[in-house]
Amino acid sequence: MSFLSKSTLAVWFLFILIAVSATGQQDMNDDALQIRAIYDLALKESKGYEWLYDLTNEVGGRLAGSPEGAAAVEYGKQIMSTLNFDTVYLQECYAPHWERGDKELVRVAQSAIGSFELSALALGNSVGTGPDGLVGDVIELKSLDELRDLPESEVAGKIIFFNRPFDDTQINTFNAYGGAVDQRVSGPLLASQKGAKAVIVRSMTNKIDDNPHTGTTGRDANIKPIPAVAISTLDAEELSRALKLGPANVYIRTTCIMHEEPVLTYNVIGEIKGQTHPEEIILVGGHLDSWDVGGGAHDDGTGCVHSLQVIELLEKINYKANRTIRCVLFMNEENGLAGGKAYWEASYEAGEFHMAAIESDRGGFTPRGFTVDGHKDIFSKKYKQVYDWLPLLEPYGLSFEKGGSGADIGGLKDQKGLLFGFLPDSQRYFDYHHTSIDHIEAVNKRELEMGAASMTALVWLLDKYGLK
Amino acid sequence: MSFLSKSTLAVWFLFILIAVSATGQQDMNDDALQIRAIYDLALKESKGYEWLYDLTNEVGGRLAGSPEGAAAVEYGKQIMSTLNFDTVYLQECYAPHWERGDKELVRVAQSAIGSFELSALALGNSVGTGPDGLVGDVIELKSLDELRDLPESEVAGKIIFFNRPFDDTQINTFNAYGGAVDQRVSGPLLASQKGAKAVIVRSMTNKIDDNPHTGTTGRDANIKPIPAVAISTLDAEELSRALKLGPANVYIRTTCIMHEEPVLTYNVIGEIKGQTHPEEIILVGGHLDSWDVGGGAHDDGTGCVHSLQVIELLEKINYKANRTIRCVLFMNEENGLAGGKAYWEASYEAGEFHMAAIESDRGGFTPRGFTVDGHKDIFSKKYKQVYDWLPLLEPYGLSFEKGGSGADIGGLKDQKGLLFGFLPDSQRYFDYHHTSIDHIEAVNKRELEMGAASMTALVWLLDKYGLK
Repeated sequence: MSFLSKSTLAVWFLFILIAVSATGQQDMNDDALQIRAIYDLALKESKGYEWLYDLTNEVGGRLAGSPEGAAAVEYGKQIMSTLNFDTVYLQECYAPHWERGDKELVRVAQSAIGSFELSALALGNSVGTGPDGLVGDVIELKSLDELRDLPESEVAGKIIFFNRPFDDTQINTFNAYGGAVDQRVSGPLLASQKGAKAVIVRSMTNKIDDNPHTGTTGRDANIKPIPAVAISTLDAEELSRALKLGPANVYIRTTCIMHEEPVLTYNVIGEIKGQTHPEEIILVGGHLDSWDVGGGAHDDGTGCVHSLQVIELLEKINYKANRTIRCVLFMNEENGLAGGKAYWEASYEAGEFHMAAIESDRGGFTPRGFTVDGHKDIFSKKYKQVYDWLPLLEPYGLSFEKGGSGADIGGLKDQKGLLFGFLPDSQRYFDYHHTSIDHIEAVNKRELEMGAASMTALVWLLDKYGLK
Repeated sequence: MSFLSKSTLAVWFLFILIAVSATGQQDMNDDALQIRAIYDLALKESKGYEWLYDLTNEVGGRLAGSPEGAAAVEYGKQIMSTLNFDTVYLQECYAPHWERGDKELVRVAQSAIGSFELSALALGNSVGTGPDGLVGDVIELKSLDELRDLPESEVAGKIIFFNRPFDDTQINTFNAYGGAVDQRVSGPLLASQKGAKAVIVRSMTNKIDDNPHTGTTGRDANIKPIPAVAISTLDAEELSRALKLGPANVYIRTTCIMHEEPVLTYNVIGEIKGQTHPEEIILVGGHLDSWDVGGGAHDDGTGCVHSLQVIELLEKINYKANRTIRCVLFMNEENGLAGGKAYWEASYEAGEFHMAAIESDRGGFTPRGFTVDGHKDIFSKKYKQVYDWLPLLEPYGLSFEKGGSGADIGGLKDQKGLLFGFLPDSQRYFDYHHTSIDHIEAVNKRELEMGAASMTALVWLLDKYGLK
């Protein structure tokens, strides 16, 4: 090979290198423009906020199995029918059937600082006291371990009051929630085993105010359920103050009912068939049910609306998906996960492959990015591919971090796609979570729209490039 | 030199490398722990939210030169007296003296859709119509250029209505503000030059609601001032709808007064003398004045409180500053910048050197980082030093970006230190800016505290390491 031909080759090689790199750059620019267009449309033209208004105000709080839950299913289907899905269908599931009953009465009957009302909500899936209510002396504890250490003789017939506050030093408030919620989920079961007659839990929030936060409590066929309520943080502090001065005796009346029979309800699913890789599914979803109090705005109206907005925005950019895009509004995330479980079961049975699934269930605040999770066999390799898209998303304040995705999609992990959790700013979420003030007023329209754009951008990249 | 000695040297060199790198690592770990402690204390023990409550509720809206402005000076001094400053003093300045007068009356008197009220606020520094008000036909325009293009004969005796909305596609809402605010600042002056009798400006916000946003308008000794009001975005849309159907005639009554004589008022300054480099000043500040409507919570109560919290938190970690830490609550940022100008003048006259100045005047939302600015002679070199601290701040969601700092500290640039602007999430800021709803309820306690911790962490790093 002559020097000339060598140098010619070298020149060609260089030329190819430049061409490839220029193509890469051009792709990057095209991608950036497309993502910019998605944001523009989200911020200017999306119907998301109107949908959320209707879901939270016209349908309202919508517990699985309630009439409002059924109305939410209809509403979800109706919105889907206005979008360009190839198919929209309902998927059956059987949810626990719990009803709150009358407004809760919880009152300090006797204490060193007198008698006073406590703002309270029965915990979801708990049993009622019956119409006469119950009365008991209160023992304040900070942890399940403290309860474990107490002899049954001391606990018998008492009301256990779990009063460990959120750890305010957690920057991500979900970590504070994770560090306190065992009191609500497992506290009543353990208290029952030790002979307590009822449980009072401090509300799961950083905020000191008068809003009680409901939420699910555990059930166990082998443990007798006892009444359990959450009281507001202000009242928890007041009850604690009373207990520091002497014994306190509390009256609780809840008429909630945990029905024996589960109730038939539905996931709402819309699907756009992929043009080139229909067998690779990209799921976007939130959960359609909410607690009965409030409007279920941040939990999880915004997640449902985000997921619908993804479809709306892909339509607005005239995008024809390569892969199958499936929007799932899951039922019964709050008190049973029946929707998620039914979905996973059907999906594995059909031999499906979710290349990616994204759940939005952390509220509709300013987007910060996505958590990414996946089966250990594939995670590193696929995470790297996604991470390479970061320069396209950083201008919108987004990043990726490793971490759990969402309750409704976690069961898809064994399909070895990637699972994402939409990650908005977390500071205000637990001001509203599971309360009567989780209404549309707590959702900022632009923040909602930016969340939808973030999810759409990610779906678009996933669909365009796939994951190998 | 023998091979042995060479390899011995190499071993030593390696050892030194490792030692230096280990020391670096240890510093990094110590710094991370110190910053973590600052956040912990801010989130658990700071009095900031209580101070903000009092400033916004007890003092309230506090225009420079008003009785409330004077009360704010007293309040600022009082809080400073509870902190460990070496000196607390007032710095004189002379602010424009403007009074709003009676509640504004703005009404569409005749139009194709009838007559209706417009929610309005007079612009700061504008002149009143007098008690009889004025009436005029309205010309709607989208820009100053459109006004420039109109012949004076068409403008004479008319009311000019500037109705260019915010650009919703701007991710940072301050950019949208920057792209619209010329209508408010320069629109009335230009309209006067063209012979208009008054100006109506669409409120400076993304949000479509019924809250008018006031704000300063320009003055020019050579141009006759004319009355100018801002109307709510909802009413701007309604007025625009009327104008699409035919002419509209609007009545405006404002009794605001722009006094000839400026009024004596004060910056409030607290100082901790540095122990090793007292001649290097690190300034933290916000502006103490606010518009008269609302409580001036996000604008700029949070900035004042952040700055006071920096001192509070440095005290809580028992930190003895190397450099002089100066906390400045500037007066009259809103309608004159008299406080900033007086401060700069005194500082240059005294030959001071502000090694760094940090202003918080973008609200009290979740912190995202800092803008950094500085004289071109020193910027690159010093910015790099600050940028190297990023790994310590990223865990708290912070970053640095090049950009303007704050109105009150901009004049310090020629001292060739670095100027920082505290940068919180911007999505909600213009929902409240210059309105009657900028109250404590719009401020989230945790978000405020995290802002204070961010600023304290930066001050601590600046003080510990200095800038070369």
